[in-house]
Amino acid sequence: MCPESSWPTFLIVFLLPPIPSDLPNIPSRGLPVFISEFSCRSATMLLLHRAMVSGLRQACRLRSAPSRLCTQACSTNDSFQPQGPSLTVSGENSSTKGWRVTGALLGLGAVLAYHHHRCRQAAQESPHIYSKEEVRSHCRPETGIWVTFGSEVFDVTEFVDLHPGGPSKLMLAAGGPLEPFWALYAVHNQPHVRELLAQYKIGELHPEDTTPSTLETSNPYADDPVRHPALKVNSQRPFNAEPPPELLTENYITPNPLFFTRNHLPVPNLDPDTYRLHVVGAPGGQSLCLSLDDLRKFPKHEVTVTLQCAGNRRSEMSQVKEVKGLEWRTGAISTARWAGARLCDVLVQAGHQLSEAEAHVCFEGLDSDPTGTAYGASIPLARALDPAAEVLLAYEMNGEPLPRDHGFPVRVVVPGVVGARHVKWLGRVSVEPEESGSHWQRRDYKGFSPSVDWDTVDFDSAPSIQELPVQSAITEPRAGETVESGEVTVKGYAWSGGGRAVIRVDVSLDGGLTWQAAELYGEEQCPRKAWAWRLWQLQAPVPAGQKELHIVCKAVDESYNVQPDTVAPIWNLRGVLSNAWHHVHVRVAP
Amino acid sequence: MCPESSWPTFLIVFLLPPIPSDLPNIPSRGLPVFISEFSCRSATMLLLHRAMVSGLRQACRLRSAPSRLCTQACSTNDSFQPQGPSLTVSGENSSTKGWRVTGALLGLGAVLAYHHHRCRQAAQESPHIYSKEEVRSHCRPETGIWVTFGSEVFDVTEFVDLHPGGPSKLMLAAGGPLEPFWALYAVHNQPHVRELLAQYKIGELHPEDTTPSTLETSNPYADDPVRHPALKVNSQRPFNAEPPPELLTENYITPNPLFFTRNHLPVPNLDPDTYRLHVVGAPGGQSLCLSLDDLRKFPKHEVTVTLQCAGNRRSEMSQVKEVKGLEWRTGAISTARWAGARLCDVLVQAGHQLSEAEAHVCFEGLDSDPTGTAYGASIPLARALDPAAEVLLAYEMNGEPLPRDHGFPVRVVVPGVVGARHVKWLGRVSVEPEESGSHWQRRDYKGFSPSVDWDTVDFDSAPSIQELPVQSAITEPRAGETVESGEVTVKGYAWSGGGRAVIRVDVSLDGGLTWQAAELYGEEQCPRKAWAWRLWQLQAPVPAGQKELHIVCKAVDESYNVQPDTVAPIWNLRGVLSNAWHHVHVRVAP
Repeated sequence: MCPESSWPTFLIVFLLPPIPSDLPNIPSRGLPVFISEFSCRSATMLLLHRAMVSGLRQACRLRSAPSRLCTQACSTNDSFQPQGPSLTVSGENSSTKGWRVTGALLGLGAVLAYHHHRCRQAAQESPHIYSKEEVRSHCRPETGIWVTFGSEVFDVTEFVDLHPGGPSKLMLAAGGPLEPFWALYAVHNQPHVRELLAQYKIGELHPEDTTPSTLETSNPYADDPVRHPALKVNSQRPFNAEPPPELLTENYITPNPLFFTRNHLPVPNLDPDTYRLHVVGAPGGQSLCLSLDDLRKFPKHEVTVTLQCAGNRRSEMSQVKEVKGLEWRTGAISTARWAGARLCDVLVQAGHQLSEAEAHVCFEGLDSDPTGTAYGASIPLARALDPAAEVLLAYEMNGEPLPRDHGFPVRVVVPGVVGARHVKWLGRVSVEPEESGSHWQRRDYKGFSPSVDWDTVDFDSAPSIQELPVQSAITEPRAGETVESGEVTVKGYAWSGGGRAVIRVDVSLDGGLTWQAAELYGEEQCPRKAWAWRLWQLQAPVPAGQKELHIVCKAVDESYNVQPDTVAPIWNLRGVLSNAWHHVHVRVAP
Repeated sequence: MCPESSWPTFLIVFLLPPIPSDLPNIPSRGLPVFISEFSCRSATMLLLHRAMVSGLRQACRLRSAPSRLCTQACSTNDSFQPQGPSLTVSGENSSTKGWRVTGALLGLGAVLAYHHHRCRQAAQESPHIYSKEEVRSHCRPETGIWVTFGSEVFDVTEFVDLHPGGPSKLMLAAGGPLEPFWALYAVHNQPHVRELLAQYKIGELHPEDTTPSTLETSNPYADDPVRHPALKVNSQRPFNAEPPPELLTENYITPNPLFFTRNHLPVPNLDPDTYRLHVVGAPGGQSLCLSLDDLRKFPKHEVTVTLQCAGNRRSEMSQVKEVKGLEWRTGAISTARWAGARLCDVLVQAGHQLSEAEAHVCFEGLDSDPTGTAYGASIPLARALDPAAEVLLAYEMNGEPLPRDHGFPVRVVVPGVVGARHVKWLGRVSVEPEESGSHWQRRDYKGFSPSVDWDTVDFDSAPSIQELPVQSAITEPRAGETVESGEVTVKGYAWSGGGRAVIRVDVSLDGGLTWQAAELYGEEQCPRKAWAWRLWQLQAPVPAGQKELHIVCKAVDESYNVQPDTVAPIWNLRGVLSNAWHHVHVRVAP
């Protein structure tokens, strides 16, 4: 039942780091060979040759070799759409070409020249029935690693180490369904991948477990959308979650289902046909009541913008001293291509213009707490009316309607400004002489001196956070990981507020004593409108005999602002603005 | 010859910290009683009363008492004008009211309730003749402290400790003339001050020493203007000098003669009547050749702007590792009220408009080296054409024609941007597709990673510095000083580039373990156009038993950028962008 001749004839889909296809100047040094240098066919042939020369095991463990080979990931229209429009992902279209599915994640679709795997008895003979719970309990090497696809259950324990994208990526799906990951990384949607997977089948899911569970209707969060299982949940109700670091920088543009989610309240379920946006008119102007179609009649404007929560990296701050807030790690930041009407166009139509006196544009969401209080925030009118600031009333995210978790049908996008002002499920816009009176504008999202505590804080004494300071973090390797001796690859992201481009990222392997500049990549951006992050990578030799590395990164923006060295001096009671150097300690394989 | 009855009847002019007169919200806690609370007359009367009660010595040593009294410094039109217009200072007029002369420096004009001073034999009986050299050698307590005024020589050794502005201020004039300081601080220009001074007279200057020495004409710097003696000179040729810290924050607006001077070449001596500014016209537009009068026909625009040299605080960076550059301490930063034509108005008249492609406005100075190479720099066209950026072709500095050292007759002022782009003695303006080709744009004034040295530097790899990062420094107390136990007053400045307001300054007395927010003061500024610094002050109890204080400051700007903790990680081979926390160690009096 396990004939050698059943080995797949499609041999390899090595996974690539994600590179935007329209990147003008990719630094060639230190990056893997790119897809453009090899056709799918020649890569396959070359690998076949290599494999025959080098022998079985060596070939199938090529993962860390410097000259990785690859096939071009196929663009498909396959979607992961378990419920509603919110998690829809299409592999490629005109507005999402920036994130090619080449950055494939769960490389089950990949595989494997001449590897020695123990073939499994196909379950069709006497199909074993497993519950969802049983599958879920198989999520660690000690228990074995199981996954499901459709109604089938697979034991992929022995495949984990062979996964071309790395074991950690496959482990994200351990104990659960593959579909959410395959939907993101369409490279898996190929016959040979299914063929490979079939060899690991051990049985079937219990029929009751193959349909989504019914909703609890008494719970205000019961109608929240289904989320991607790769997200690391910091709070279930309201839902707050971040992508794991190793996925965060796999793509320059974050796939919608992996975009960090920061909700303050239950997610409203709005009907796009009856949705209306109320824009209060200026004195002498006219108030507007805009349907989604009305909004689409304004000139459509597209812009790539990184959003970051003020609480990103709070977990590091709370290690200094307790703070109030969700324990975000490095993932409360993501990047999307947003499209919508420019706020300035809508405001002008309502008769607003720049005033001598300072004024504010106040936004109200359609999400609300049991008392009916809606989420609210504001930005200065000067920013809202400046066409160069590109503030959007966005109805598209990466070429799709906004997912429900990200504000369907309309949210504000304020490039260069803290996430808290990008009000989702937007219901009302008005121009006021003062900032929004909302709790989140006045009594939250502000920074204070480390000496200020909850007994002494005066929220009126600090300005509300608008532009954020320069930031960077390491996403690979992960803390505690063991890296190969010889050479280490360090990856991460860097971003600064206010449209200030990141001009350099310094990386240290010795805790900050010596530094090397990393290679930056990402979309080209307009001067002074660098709204989106830069991804970065450093390949550096590991000093001989080194048993550990203390990796640190710090970024510099175009105003030459830098990140502070340590967290304690920027500690604040809300744990916001945590942008000190990021540290990762790893061991070096002997 | 020293009758008790000759004691001056004008008793006291206590010196104040400088407070802009139009400050809206002066924090009252921790600041001395202000002039507005006492008239000159009532202060005098009150002091008389106090003095009689408390006895002679106590009264005359009131300097550090918390309830300092004061008279309002008189506004005068007295000028210190030894040569040319460059050092002219008028005490007050409409455009300079921000820097009241209340912040008087050399309080010789002050004096002294019932003190026991030894009267000196007036020199009129047998006038002793001293050379300038002899006077200059008397500049330390060990040698005695001499000063001159006109042709007269005074031994003020015993007055130094009685000086109401503090001994350190008087010591700035030790061994030299008083005129430059009295010109700045017009409070001295009163009969009773002259009367007091006369009592210290010991003789006359040699007639040859009372006229300025003749110029060395073979030296390209021979025609440089005379500078204020309080300036700390980092380089004589070209002239580069900074005000001492204790003067730097005495006034919110820096008096012209104390404004830091950063020259790259000899100072041109330009005739305002024949001066012409050449503005290259756009294709289809017209080139302009503007006289000073032509420039004055454009709408006059005034703005308060802080200028900072990229090398400010370089001396701290060079302590980490050698750098190339002048050893600026904390004084390569100053603030003035500039007036002139807006660059955008002039450019528009020459037919320029914002282009899709990135373009640059290139400036050329009329200063040049022996090969004829002029100083040059550029800024992005988008900034130049933005009325909100308030870029000026300035012909006035604090209500006066520009001093020669600061660009007479016309310089560029680029709010929020590094000093190097504020080209002085402006000769030519053009719009180019690329940055200025000048050495100072392309091969200087750029930041690099600490790993980059002169063997590996690639100047093309870093952007030219435009906006500067957030900065702050302590100006009082000075390093090594002994402060009183009980309470310490810490003063300093804080500023950030790009119009980002400083929103907080944290001060630590224990090297950065704990922090207190300082009181900020200074001119109110427009949102997003905070072009000028904030001065700050903290009065804090000295912990009992403390023998030393390790004072540290760090500022936060409105984008919540902060200063880095330490210098080494921002070290760069040119020693620019030195903005780590500033440290001052002092002893505490037992």
